[in-house]
Amino acid sequence: MGKQKIFLDKLSQSLQIRNLLVRQGLAECLGTLILVMFGCGSVAQFTLSGGTHGIFLAVNLAFGFAATLGILVCGQVSGGHLNPAVTFALCLLGREKWRKFPVYFLFQTLGAFLGAGVIFGLYFDALQRKVAETPNNELPIGIFATYPGEHLSTVNGFFDQLIGTAALIVCILAIVDPFNNPIPQGLEAFTVGFTVLVIGLSMGFNSGYAVNPARDLGPRLFTSIAGWGSRVFTNGNYWFLVPIFAPFLGTIVGVIVYQLMVGWHVEGEVRDKKRATEDNVKLNDMNEA
Amino acid sequence: MGKQKIFLDKLSQSLQIRNLLVRQGLAECLGTLILVMFGCGSVAQFTLSGGTHGIFLAVNLAFGFAATLGILVCGQVSGGHLNPAVTFALCLLGREKWRKFPVYFLFQTLGAFLGAGVIFGLYFDALQRKVAETPNNELPIGIFATYPGEHLSTVNGFFDQLIGTAALIVCILAIVDPFNNPIPQGLEAFTVGFTVLVIGLSMGFNSGYAVNPARDLGPRLFTSIAGWGSRVFTNGNYWFLVPIFAPFLGTIVGVIVYQLMVGWHVEGEVRDKKRATEDNVKLNDMNEA
Amino acid sequence: MGKQKIFLDKLSQSLQIRNLLVRQGLAECLGTLILVMFGCGSVAQFTLSGGTHGIFLAVNLAFGFAATLGILVCGQVSGGHLNPAVTFALCLLGREKWRKFPVYFLFQTLGAFLGAGVIFGLYFDALQRKVAETPNNELPIGIFATYPGEHLSTVNGFFDQLIGTAALIVCILAIVDPFNNPIPQGLEAFTVGFTVLVIGLSMGFNSGYAVNPARDLGPRLFTSIAGWGSRVFTNGNYWFLVPIFAPFLGTIVGVIVYQLMVGWHVEGEVRDKKRATEDNVKLNDMNEA
Amino acid sequence: MGKQKIFLDKLSQSLQIRNLLVRQGLAECLGTLILVMFGCGSVAQFTLSGGTHGIFLAVNLAFGFAATLGILVCGQVSGGHLNPAVTFALCLLGREKWRKFPVYFLFQTLGAFLGAGVIFGLYFDALQRKVAETPNNELPIGIFATYPGEHLSTVNGFFDQLIGTAALIVCILAIVDPFNNPIPQGLEAFTVGFTVLVIGLSMGFNSGYAVNPARDLGPRLFTSIAGWGSRVFTNGNYWFLVPIFAPFLGTIVGVIVYQLMVGWHVEGEVRDKKRATEDNVKLNDMNEA
Repeated sequence: MGKQKIFLDKLSQSLQIRNLLVRQGLAECLGTLILVMFGCGSVAQFTLSGGTHGIFLAVNLAFGFAATLGILVCGQVSGGHLNPAVTFALCLLGREKWRKFPVYFLFQTLGAFLGAGVIFGLYFDALQRKVAETPNNELPIGIFATYPGEHLSTVNGFFDQLIGTAALIVCILAIVDPFNNPIPQGLEAFTVGFTVLVIGLSMGFNSGYAVNPARDLGPRLFTSIAGWGSRVFTNGNYWFLVPIFAPFLGTIVGVIVYQLMVGWHVEGEVRDKKRATEDNVKLNDMNEA
Repeated sequence: MGKQKIFLDKLSQSLQIRNLLVRQGLAECLGTLILVMFGCGSVAQFTLSGGTHGIFLAVNLAFGFAATLGILVCGQVSGGHLNPAVTFALCLLGREKWRKFPVYFLFQTLGAFLGAGVIFGLYFDALQRKVAETPNNELPIGIFATYPGEHLSTVNGFFDQLIGTAALIVCILAIVDPFNNPIPQGLEAFTVGFTVLVIGLSMGFNSGYAVNPARDLGPRLFTSIAGWGSRVFTNGNYWFLVPIFAPFLGTIVGVIVYQLMVGWHVEGEVRDKKRATEDNVKLNDMNEA
Repeated sequence: MGKQKIFLDKLSQSLQIRNLLVRQGLAECLGTLILVMFGCGSVAQFTLSGGTHGIFLAVNLAFGFAATLGILVCGQVSGGHLNPAVTFALCLLGREKWRKFPVYFLFQTLGAFLGAGVIFGLYFDALQRKVAETPNNELPIGIFATYPGEHLSTVNGFFDQLIGTAALIVCILAIVDPFNNPIPQGLEAFTVGFTVLVIGLSMGFNSGYAVNPARDLGPRLFTSIAGWGSRVFTNGNYWFLVPIFAPFLGTIVGVIVYQLMVGWHVEGEVRDKKRATEDNVKLNDMNEA
Repeated sequence: MGKQKIFLDKLSQSLQIRNLLVRQGLAECLGTLILVMFGCGSVAQFTLSGGTHGIFLAVNLAFGFAATLGILVCGQVSGGHLNPAVTFALCLLGREKWRKFPVYFLFQTLGAFLGAGVIFGLYFDALQRKVAETPNNELPIGIFATYPGEHLSTVNGFFDQLIGTAALIVCILAIVDPFNNPIPQGLEAFTVGFTVLVIGLSMGFNSGYAVNPARDLGPRLFTSIAGWGSRVFTNGNYWFLVPIFAPFLGTIVGVIVYQLMVGWHVEGEVRDKKRATEDNVKLNDMNEA
C-alpha cells in the first residue's frame, strides 16, 4: 500500500488547481450536473416508462433530493448555489462578489448541459423505442427542458416563474441568513432540498417549475444539438426566454419580500445590541477614567 | 462593492422596524403566507391537473413541509406559530402574553389571505380553463378553504376539527416543552412538519384537516372577494364556523391531555429536583454555620 | 398574567403524580394512543375514501411517522417503547426491569384501545355510510386490527410476524445500543420511524405488519365492543393469537441475531479497552510505588 | 435480575469474536441482509400484490431507507459499505486495505443471499399463489435479482450500471470525504439513503438499479437454488455479468470525476494551509533563535 499512497499523493498534487474561482466553477458544474442528472432522469423515467416507474410526486422528490446531493457535493468549495438566481440573490445582498455571477452562471449551465447528456445516454434505447412508437417519430419533448402547459399564456407563465423563484429565494435567504439561524449547521442542503420539493408539489403544473435559468438553458442547448433542433427554442412562443429572465425578476421580488418582512429587522436587532454593548463599554471606560 | 454595501446599510437602517410586536406580526404573516401558498398550491395543482400532477399524498407532504418552511422563515422572530390555535395553547400555558393572541391571529389570517391570492394568480389560466370545462361554469370550490365531505354531519365535523387540533397541540407541546427535550435544537420545525403531514395522512378525509382558523378563514375571505361570493360562507350549513371555533376547543383538550399525562409530571420532577438541591444547599449552609 | 401563573402552578402541583411507574404507564399510554390514532386513522382514510384520499404508501408513512411522534411525546418519561415486544427485548437484555413488562403491556394496550376509539369517533359518519353501501351491511373489518390476506396460511402468517418483529428489534437494538452510537442523540425517534416505515413498505402485504401485540390487541378489543362482536377473534382461524405471540418469539430471534452478529462484539471491545486502561493504571501505580 | 446480568455477561464474553476482520465481515453480512431483505421485500410486495400494496416509488423509498438502516446497524464496526463497489472505491483511494475487499465482497454477497432467503420464506404462500395464477406456472422473475427491460440492449445496460454506480460513488465520496465535511457527524447513513432513493427515482427504469454486485449476485444465487434454476444466469443474454462488472468500472469513473472536480482541490487546500502553518512555525523558530 506504500506505493499506492505515494502515487495518489503525487497525482493529487499534480492535478490540484489553486485558482479559487476555477475550483468553484468546477464544483458548481459538478453540483448542477448532479441536480440535472437526477432531476431530468426522473422525468425521463416517468415519461419513458409510461407511468409504470414513476409519478409526478417521484419527480418532485427526485429534484428536491437531487438539489440536496448537489449542494452536499460542492457546497464547501463553492457554496452550492446550483442556480444563477441564487448567485444573483447573494450578489444583490453583497454576500458574493458580482464577478462570480457570470462564472457561476457559465459553469452551472455547463453542468446542466452535461447532466442532460448523461441521461440522454442512459435512456438512449428507451428514447429510441419511444420515438418509434410516436406517430410522427418525434422525439419526446419535455424531458430535459421545460415547456408551458396548453392552458398557460406567456404572461401567466412569466408570473409563474417569477413567483416560483421568489418563493425559493425567500426560503433560501431564511436558511442562510447570517443573522437568523433557524437550523443546525450542516442541514442547509437538506432544507433547500425540501424547499425545491415543496415548490414542485405546489407550483409544478403550469410549466414544470424550472425556477433556475441554468437548469433550463443547459439541457435545452443539449436537446437542440441532440436531434430536437430549433424547435426547443421556438416552441411555446419562444418560451425558452421565460425561464431565463423571469427567475431574475423573481429573485429581486424574493429578496425584497424577505428583507422587508424579516431580514432587515433581525439584522437591525443584532446591530442595535452590538451598539448598546459598545456604548456600555464606552460608558464604563468613561466612568473608570 | 463599496457603494453597494453603503447603500444596503442605509436601506437596512431606514427600513428597520423596532416595535417587536409589529415585527413579529410581519414575520407570522410571511410564515403563514408560505404555509398557505405551498399548501393550497398543492391542492390547486392536484385539482386543476385532474390528478396528473398530484395525489392526496402530495398535498399532505406539501402542507407538512410548507409548515416546516414557514416556521423556519419566521421562527426566530415570532416563534413560528402560523396558527392561532398554537398561539392560544401557549397563552393558556402562560408561555406567551395574551395580548399577542389577537395580533398574531390578525397577521396569520392576513398572511393566509395573501398566500391564497398568490396561488390564485399563479393558476389563473388553469382556473379559467377549469371553469370553462365545468357544466355551470362554476369556480372549483375546495382549493382554498375547506368544506365538509358529503358524508359528514356538522357534529362529526366539529369533532373532527376538535380532535385534529388536539392531536396537533399534543405533539407541538411535546416538541416545545421546556421540561421535556425530545429533539435536538433546531429540528422543531421539521418535527412540526411531520406532525402536520401525519394529521393529513390520517385525518384528511372528512373535511380536509384545516386545524387552523387562520389557514381556513384567510383563503375563504379571499375566495369570497375573488368571485366565489357568499357561497363560501353558506356552503355546508355555514361550515366556515367549524374550522374557526372547533380548533380552539381542541386546543383546550390537547393542552389538558398532554399536561395531565406527561407535561405536569416532567415539570414537577424538575421542580422536585430543584427543591432537593436547594434543601441540600440550605442544610449544608446550616451545618457549616 | 400573575393570577394565571399562580393558578397553573397550583394545578401543576396538585395534579403531579410522583409514582414513576404510573407516570411511565401514562406516558406509554399516550404514546401508543398517538401511534394507533394516526396509524389506524390512515388505514381508515384509505379504506373509507375508496382510495381517493390515500394509498398503501400513505399508510406506511403514517405508521412510521406516528411511531416517531409517539416516541417523542413519551420518550423522556418512559423510553418510548409503544410496543410490548420492544419492552420485552430490553428486559431480555437486562436494560429494563422485568416488572415493567406487564405494566407497560397493559398501558400500551389501553392506549391502542383509546386510539382506535378516537378514530372510530372521527370517522363515525364515514363508517356508517360504508356500512350502508356494503351488501350485508357489515362493518368494514381490517381498519383497526390486522387480519391475514386470503393467500396466507397460519404457519406463513406466524413466520411473517416473527420475521417482521425480529427485523424491527434488530434495527431498534442497533439504534439504542449503548456500545454502538450510530446516530446523534435525539434522532432515535426519527430512525425508529423510518424502521417502521420500511417494514410497512416491504412486509405489509401478508397481514398488515402489526409486529406489536398492543397495537393489534387494543384496537381488536375496541372493535369487538363497538359492534363487530366476536368475529374479530374467530376470523382467520383465530388469527388474533398470531400478532400476540409471534412478535415475542420474533423478539428473541432479533435479540440473538443482533447480539451474535454485532452487539456482543462491540460490547466486548469496550470491555477490553476498559480492562487495558485499568491494567495500565495498575501497572503505573506499581511502577510508581 | 442479578442472575440474569451474570448470565448475560458470561454469554457476552464466551461469544465475543476478537478477530476484527471476522467481526467486520459479520457486520457487513447483517447490514447487507437488512438492505436486501427490506429492498427485495418491497419489490415482492409490489409484484405479488399486483400493485395494491406498493408502487415503484415505494420500492425506491424502501431501498433507500433500507440502505440507511443497514449502515446504521453495522457502520460502527465495518464502515457500513453494504456494496463491494463502495469497498472498491475506498481501496482505490487508499482509505481501506485491499485485503478487506475480497472478505467484504464475500460477506456482503452472503448477506444478500440470506436476505433474499428471508423474503422468499416471508412471501412463500403469496409466491405459490402467483405461480398458480401464471399461465406456464412460472416463478415470477425479477423480485430478487435484476433483469434488463425489453427495450434495453446490453451496451446501454452496461452504460446504465456504470453511470448509476458512478453517481452513487460521487455522492458517497462527498459524504465521507475527510477533507470535505458537508454534513453533521452521524447523518452519513441518512444521506447515503437519500442517494440510493434518488438513484432509484431517476435510473430505475432500464434494469432496476442494482449498482451493487453483492445485492444482485447474492439473491440471484438464492433464486437459482430455490427453483428458478439456470434461467437466472442465462436470461437477458447472460445479463447477470453486467451488474457484477459494470459497477466496478463505474466506481473508477466516479472516483476520478469526484477527485478531479472537487476532491483533490479540497485535499490540496488543507495540505497548503498545513504547510503554510509549518513554515510560519519554522520562521518563528528561526526568528526566535
